[in-house]
Amino acid sequence: MTLARSMKSLMEGNSVIRKMFELGQEMAEKYGKEQVYDFSLGNPVASVPYEVKNAIISLLENQDPHEIHGYMKNAGFPDVRKQVAEHLEKRFGLAYSAENILMCNGAAGGLNILMRCLLDEEDEVLCFAPYFTEYKAYVSHYKAKLTVVPMRKEDFSLNLDMAEQMIKRRTKAVILNNPNNPSGIIYSEEDLRALTKILKSAEERLGHPIYLICDEPYRELAYDDREVLFMPEIYENSIYLYSFSKTLSIPGERIGYLAISDRVEEGKELMAAAVIAGRTLGFVNAPSLFQKVIGQCLDVKVDLSFYDRNRKLLYTELSEMGFSCVPPQGAFYLLMKSPMEDTDAFLKLAEEEHIILVPTDGFGLPGYFRLAYCLPYEKIEASIPAFRALAKKCQERVLQDKEEQ
Amino acid sequence: MTLARSMKSLMEGNSVIRKMFELGQEMAEKYGKEQVYDFSLGNPVASVPYEVKNAIISLLENQDPHEIHGYMKNAGFPDVRKQVAEHLEKRFGLAYSAENILMCNGAAGGLNILMRCLLDEEDEVLCFAPYFTEYKAYVSHYKAKLTVVPMRKEDFSLNLDMAEQMIKRRTKAVILNNPNNPSGIIYSEEDLRALTKILKSAEERLGHPIYLICDEPYRELAYDDREVLFMPEIYENSIYLYSFSKTLSIPGERIGYLAISDRVEEGKELMAAAVIAGRTLGFVNAPSLFQKVIGQCLDVKVDLSFYDRNRKLLYTELSEMGFSCVPPQGAFYLLMKSPMEDTDAFLKLAEEEHIILVPTDGFGLPGYFRLAYCLPYEKIEASIPAFRALAKKCQERVLQDKEEQ
Repeated sequence: MTLARSMKSLMEGNSVIRKMFELGQEMAEKYGKEQVYDFSLGNPVASVPYEVKNAIISLLENQDPHEIHGYMKNAGFPDVRKQVAEHLEKRFGLAYSAENILMCNGAAGGLNILMRCLLDEEDEVLCFAPYFTEYKAYVSHYKAKLTVVPMRKEDFSLNLDMAEQMIKRRTKAVILNNPNNPSGIIYSEEDLRALTKILKSAEERLGHPIYLICDEPYRELAYDDREVLFMPEIYENSIYLYSFSKTLSIPGERIGYLAISDRVEEGKELMAAAVIAGRTLGFVNAPSLFQKVIGQCLDVKVDLSFYDRNRKLLYTELSEMGFSCVPPQGAFYLLMKSPMEDTDAFLKLAEEEHIILVPTDGFGLPGYFRLAYCLPYEKIEASIPAFRALAKKCQERVLQDKEEQ
Repeated sequence: MTLARSMKSLMEGNSVIRKMFELGQEMAEKYGKEQVYDFSLGNPVASVPYEVKNAIISLLENQDPHEIHGYMKNAGFPDVRKQVAEHLEKRFGLAYSAENILMCNGAAGGLNILMRCLLDEEDEVLCFAPYFTEYKAYVSHYKAKLTVVPMRKEDFSLNLDMAEQMIKRRTKAVILNNPNNPSGIIYSEEDLRALTKILKSAEERLGHPIYLICDEPYRELAYDDREVLFMPEIYENSIYLYSFSKTLSIPGERIGYLAISDRVEEGKELMAAAVIAGRTLGFVNAPSLFQKVIGQCLDVKVDLSFYDRNRKLLYTELSEMGFSCVPPQGAFYLLMKSPMEDTDAFLKLAEEEHIILVPTDGFGLPGYFRLAYCLPYEKIEASIPAFRALAKKCQERVLQDKEEQ
């Protein structure tokens, strides 16, 4: 084996999301796209806002191509960083300047940069179950450890008592994904304020900052007027991480930003390190044209009603069929509890109905499935009979198993 | 210090290129852009070919925005990968298929992906001095070692005897940057064929493949009809790495590809690993719109005459002034030997004339400076009197030093 040993374990744990996505694509080729109900991938299908196309064309027509396609400072175009800083300040009332902003390749790019900056071997990063399955890989590149705080099973909220116990001497950062992928939960203000207290007291106890990395690509997808608390306001050592993938329906373009305010302890050093980490990890800079594009699209709103319709339809129908689901509050994911003890068997049954789900074992949550409902409404409507057939088969199977026992 | 210890050394060795580039920008602000001769950065200024803009607009007008801005397989759009494979096969006569191609974020992105795939702690990667200064950082992320083969001082060619001695049990790969940054040298066919013999015999001796990573962003910048040998043809375990930054003058867009042909030993495993490494390092995929753009621009030719004029003017003038320069054959770099023993003092003198050069200590070549002549011709013309003044000051200083001794 010529590959790095450490690569082997990464390959064995390869993303089940991608595996299911590729299965869905194969099934679509075999049975026709209309006959497959693929809930695997968080690939937004709300329209790409017309402002994106307008911005690209206006940039191509009016600006020097060497400017829009050329090198800039590794941190990003100064004008775009200034626009982002002003946008944040206007929106959240917290002071930001261009120097606080690093343009990065989506949230995944930003997280990797932060992990490179912060982690030595055996350092720890805390996150809360259920968590985005790739965090583990990000941390593993530097031989550090991802410590997963179990959730409160009742309501999928933050288990704060456990978190407090699990913060150790080597804990460098806590990742908070809000709204949460895969649960669709938005964490309550009460819990988040309690979390900051825990973090502050841990900082005092340990004598070093514990950065709260606020991974918020789904911030704009909050239903029923729920508020997503802006953590940098209430916890000084917050690093805010945003991606435009979901809001502008442009996940392939890999564009987002990191914001490290002046209130962050050692924030200037961290920003300087992030610039160098970004360059030496091979990002060099976030894609240039799309930096300029998002500079012109900061106030563009996502079509929330598009996903909300899907959410309501899917949750209501599945619940009525007897599936046990976590009521989704944000993002475009719905968690469904496996109605069968043997989750593989259930996954197979779903496949027979051409329904592609993602088991959440890799998200720190065995016994559940994630459904990404970022699909056309008609597709979700069309899937309902398939789910009904699945529910029926499932009941039959459960009865059969009972008889056999 | 909250930052990773390993980050600290990266920060201390921070790119002198970027430092000089930023100095150039500060001086431009202070004295006016016209008064500064900035040879620091390889930021191509040949026109962005009209085909790039045409491709973007045609894609925006004719294709589904979800397709061009959305997720695809992590390896890239299948149609673009097929186009790249066909292009390579047509051009070099070696068999490639879409499955051999991974779209990546420029050459820097591709190199980082390969390093992640191949390197465990204490593994080694060989490269030849002078070398692109960032290789060291890329290797360091995985605590591996970059072993630098000294060049032949007479002509900056490959020191093959040394290379043979320096390949050890832990050598996983050799990086070959041809045409070379910073020397502007194109390696001879004779040397390259000799190199493959050395690699093959080392593979037999060591019992594992030694991948030759052909880092070739400057392939299309070869002057006087010089040939840049296509290594995958003569060495089976070659991995070809290309970037469109220089050819299409779009370095900010971060777009390139990796090609791992079926002849590469364990090539399928390496490709599978590269896809996962790319995703988990946070690239996820190469920027989507620009994947499609380069699919339409594969046959676009760079304006070679643009850089060739610069090359001739700069080399001729500097040589006439008495500066000792390496005759540049490719890329857009010229190496100048420091005319003073104290290179810092020379750099200061140059700065006094508003000339920004990059010392090449970090490229494994102390005592030299790199001049990136990817500038408008008029800029190079305008810099000649400044160089002349520098030459004069330099002579005076050398005389003065002699008198003092």
